[in-house]
Amino acid sequence: MYNKDMEKLGKQASAIRTLFEYGKAKKKEIGDDKVYDFSIGNPSVASPSIVNSTLIKLINEKDSTKLHGYTSASGDDNTKKAIEEYLNKTYNADVCYKDIYMTCGAAASLAITFNAILNKDEEVIVFAPFFPEYKVFVEKAGGIIDIVKSDKDFQIDFDDLNKHINKNTKIVIINSPNNPTGVIYTEENIIKLAKLLEEKAKLYNHPIYLVSDEPYRELIYTDTLYPFITRYYKNSIVCYSFSKSLSLPGERIGYILLSSDMDNKENVFNAVRGAGRSLGYVCAPALFQQMVPYCLGYTSDLNEYKKNLKDLKEMLEEIGYEIIKPEGAFYMFVKALEEDANGFSENAKKFNLLLVPSDSFGVKGYVRIAYCVSNNQIKASKTAFENLYKFYQEEK
Amino acid sequence: MYNKDMEKLGKQASAIRTLFEYGKAKKKEIGDDKVYDFSIGNPSVASPSIVNSTLIKLINEKDSTKLHGYTSASGDDNTKKAIEEYLNKTYNADVCYKDIYMTCGAAASLAITFNAILNKDEEVIVFAPFFPEYKVFVEKAGGIIDIVKSDKDFQIDFDDLNKHINKNTKIVIINSPNNPTGVIYTEENIIKLAKLLEEKAKLYNHPIYLVSDEPYRELIYTDTLYPFITRYYKNSIVCYSFSKSLSLPGERIGYILLSSDMDNKENVFNAVRGAGRSLGYVCAPALFQQMVPYCLGYTSDLNEYKKNLKDLKEMLEEIGYEIIKPEGAFYMFVKALEEDANGFSENAKKFNLLLVPSDSFGVKGYVRIAYCVSNNQIKASKTAFENLYKFYQEEK
Repeated sequence: MYNKDMEKLGKQASAIRTLFEYGKAKKKEIGDDKVYDFSIGNPSVASPSIVNSTLIKLINEKDSTKLHGYTSASGDDNTKKAIEEYLNKTYNADVCYKDIYMTCGAAASLAITFNAILNKDEEVIVFAPFFPEYKVFVEKAGGIIDIVKSDKDFQIDFDDLNKHINKNTKIVIINSPNNPTGVIYTEENIIKLAKLLEEKAKLYNHPIYLVSDEPYRELIYTDTLYPFITRYYKNSIVCYSFSKSLSLPGERIGYILLSSDMDNKENVFNAVRGAGRSLGYVCAPALFQQMVPYCLGYTSDLNEYKKNLKDLKEMLEEIGYEIIKPEGAFYMFVKALEEDANGFSENAKKFNLLLVPSDSFGVKGYVRIAYCVSNNQIKASKTAFENLYKFYQEEK
Repeated sequence: MYNKDMEKLGKQASAIRTLFEYGKAKKKEIGDDKVYDFSIGNPSVASPSIVNSTLIKLINEKDSTKLHGYTSASGDDNTKKAIEEYLNKTYNADVCYKDIYMTCGAAASLAITFNAILNKDEEVIVFAPFFPEYKVFVEKAGGIIDIVKSDKDFQIDFDDLNKHINKNTKIVIINSPNNPTGVIYTEENIIKLAKLLEEKAKLYNHPIYLVSDEPYRELIYTDTLYPFITRYYKNSIVCYSFSKSLSLPGERIGYILLSSDMDNKENVFNAVRGAGRSLGYVCAPALFQQMVPYCLGYTSDLNEYKKNLKDLKEMLEEIGYEIIKPEGAFYMFVKALEEDANGFSENAKKFNLLLVPSDSFGVKGYVRIAYCVSNNQIKASKTAFENLYKFYQEEK
């Protein structure tokens, strides 16, 4: 027979996807503008115009076999050099283009990284709430997910982390700005994390890799400094995607970056190459690789997300909802009005509000609101949020 | 530590790649036109113009968030419906768009398929000579490669196949037109193969899947009928890529197709979805998916390959080389002038002829000539081929 684990995985729709499909059906029934769908983290803002103008320029000017031909497996050198320059200039990151491996987006970056690093039954620490696909990728690579709590501000809970790290811990994943909370880890916490991991690596006599999943790196709406991880920890691996910054989620373009001072860096890079090869990744899409050097530093219009965040936050707080301080990405984490977030999400559906229960992300009692929607939708949803709130007031 | 198997795989350069890199260095040393590089199977003919005009039209006319947004994991329905229509019209294939899963090219199609089907230590039959990455993908999916001989015309050796199929055989891979031989399997042999697999599946009481790796399907230079596999065998899986037909190897666009009458088809399709998901494939590149419906049925100018094939064949036969009858792809399989193909390839290098020894493909005594090069290179290489031949004459 076919592989039953894979079949189960393919059949299993995520809570997010299920809610999204419910929304599509409901919109058909009662009209697009009557359903307030906050379920999906799909960029709602157009790509910056330089993306399309660069694509057209490349198509018109470059020789076809060069434009659409294979790049080397780790990516086009021009692209990698431009990324090196951009990261060093922007974050003082001290990285080298030779340590970059271009990928088909963040999911590919993560899957390749886990397969490159993990041996059977090694452990990967994630902080709840976390992006549920981490578990899928880690388990396929033979590893085991080990869930550590966050503190009350959804920063790292160091006490719990300290208890969890053990001799089988091989990777710690951070995701900042965070999906689903929108929280950015402070520099202070990154420094503390790096110190702890160095101590533990020494204690257990093997490297512990810090994998930073950062597709939302440029989606920051405060003056918070973004602590670029290679500056703080030598065994760090950046998994990046242009999906969110350039609104290109369908085009599958991103990269893996190893810190310059990584232990056995050349071997780890070869392991990344080997993992990419064995999973069927030949190269990242060539046209989009060649687009990258022209578009680094550009983003979709973040003011649209920023305005959505401001309007939504004011509106919800005015009604009485409790919100985790959102600083980046396009997600807001809101306390459910009952203990059971699934029940709360179900009740929200009665008012045509689609809010993802936090259980999908490994914590209880919250919902995720993806505010990558039109500003009109936010304004139009006010009455529904009010009625949902009243519903719970009356329940008491 | 990192994963050592992956590191080994990443470090290990293929014979093809090694020869190609040698060629690049040599060209720098003595000039591009002095090295006759027949090492790499990289399309040398431009994409048909409809590819670039469609890309530009889509970029100019479609809404950015729709153009570059996620498609569903199995692919855009419009694209899949167009492929269904094309295959049913062209090959009378009797396939349904719901059984198509769009991928990032043939390597992804194969890796996903093997992960979807195989359980630990199940066996996959390949016919030598075979594309060496099959082994990499199969072993990563937990399976074991079982090598079966070809007959003297490089068609299927049914006696050897019959001996190899056993209760652990789960998949048989065919690749026609073939890399590295250029041979196309006859309809008669496909019928015979289907009959044998049906008998064996019954005997062992489980399906044996026939995986047809067919990126060269449209690159055929004879009137040979192409036997489309779903017409002959119910448990067949087509792994396709547009890399060769549209000269888009860097863009990573292809698909997996299950035959309509497959046993437990829905479950197998879910296993494909699950495998794609767990390997980090979110969707196939969106812009290129949307290009597909406009470009089905088009190919790069095959007359260029056809002319190369004719000129090269005439030239080599006139000199005295023995050639396996080439019908498709852009490869010619030529008998080495000594038993050791590696030694022959080394001697060819002395005349700046880069020919891939057949050992890389699992057979001895031949070299592969990739004739996806300029016609000038073929003409210019005549003296080198003559001198190589003379060298062996004098040795005797």
